[in-house]
Amino acid sequence: MQITSEALERVIEELARLPGTGRKSAQRIAIHLLKQNEERVLTLAEALVQLKKAVKRCSVCGTITDSDPCPICSNEKRKNGSVCVVEEFQDVYIIEKTNEFRGRYHVLGGIISPLENIGPDDIRIKELLQRISSGKEEITEVILALNPDAEGEATSYYINKLLLNYDVSVTRIAYGIPMGTELEFIDEATLSRAFASRTSF
Amino acid sequence: MQITSEALERVIEELARLPGTGRKSAQRIAIHLLKQNEERVLTLAEALVQLKKAVKRCSVCGTITDSDPCPICSNEKRKNGSVCVVEEFQDVYIIEKTNEFRGRYHVLGGIISPLENIGPDDIRIKELLQRISSGKEEITEVILALNPDAEGEATSYYINKLLLNYDVSVTRIAYGIPMGTELEFIDEATLSRAFASRTSF
Repeated sequence: MQITSEALERVIEELARLPGTGRKSAQRIAIHLLKQNEERVLTLAEALVQLKKAVKRCSVCGTITDSDPCPICSNEKRKNGSVCVVEEFQDVYIIEKTNEFRGRYHVLGGIISPLENIGPDDIRIKELLQRISSGKEEITEVILALNPDAEGEATSYYINKLLLNYDVSVTRIAYGIPMGTELEFIDEATLSRAFASRTSF
Repeated sequence: MQITSEALERVIEELARLPGTGRKSAQRIAIHLLKQNEERVLTLAEALVQLKKAVKRCSVCGTITDSDPCPICSNEKRKNGSVCVVEEFQDVYIIEKTNEFRGRYHVLGGIISPLENIGPDDIRIKELLQRISSGKEEITEVILALNPDAEGEATSYYINKLLLNYDVSVTRIAYGIPMGTELEFIDEATLSRAFASRTSF
């Protein structure tokens, strides 16, 4: 096979390395870009460069941000005493979409996992305790919103134990039947959890 | 919803405009890139810039190339008298993959389509006739490899008619039953065509 454009080939190769993009879709995207005007492609390239140059971690909550502290940590209206603890910055995105939670976040940047050799000191638990004890944010409630798997459970348990020494209430988001489904499609673990966590009507 | 990083948001928006990439996959790709080291992302950005800077059309055959004439048109070994006429440069890619055709190409850059107001003068038919009459490439055979649809058929017919005045043989690639399928899954138009184009055993 004779490749007539190395430049096109290089773009296809780079795109094919992205998650969920095989060689065929990489080829389709590259050909699409080739047909776009130059400005459009340069905008995408520039956005990618900025992604690595501008984006950093918020020194307070650990989420990704262009400015430190992040817009949530520097917004006084979000200082309502509640801090929601999540595993990764994507979770901040997901929770923000609900427009339900009006407090601040704390991104652990990982989860306790003995199998992967990640201990409590490898994630941002110390920083959470410091935020609480400094008193600056007048934190009164810590909401644990970790994934409902073994590591998430263990990490929640560990953090809850540490927080017993602090004057904050610790809650966790409800795990149960998702909205809009039918009981027959729910797995047993979720159903058991829904029973154990039943609330008064 | 509070967006904590405009830079990330911009990348997601740009990626979501690519074909076959919805907002969800754009988000997944953007987050993936955020986690890559800087060099990796800059390589992708640079490849995109080069795509628009380096890639042009071959002045002989019309395919995309970084150098003009393209590697196929400047390769003396590919000057075997055969020229394969295709609609777009992607077709060159597809045919090159088979390693079957060892001649050169002629990219029309479109197809005759009265509905879309594309006439014979809007595609590179003149250039094909010039390549043949100049005698430089000693062209003896023109292979039509257009798509087997109404426009492709009409364009093939039109080119064939023009080439009657030239001392070249005109062939077309075979249309028929694709390899590895079973007859019961073949549509009637293809089957009719396969009968009409039957060859001696």
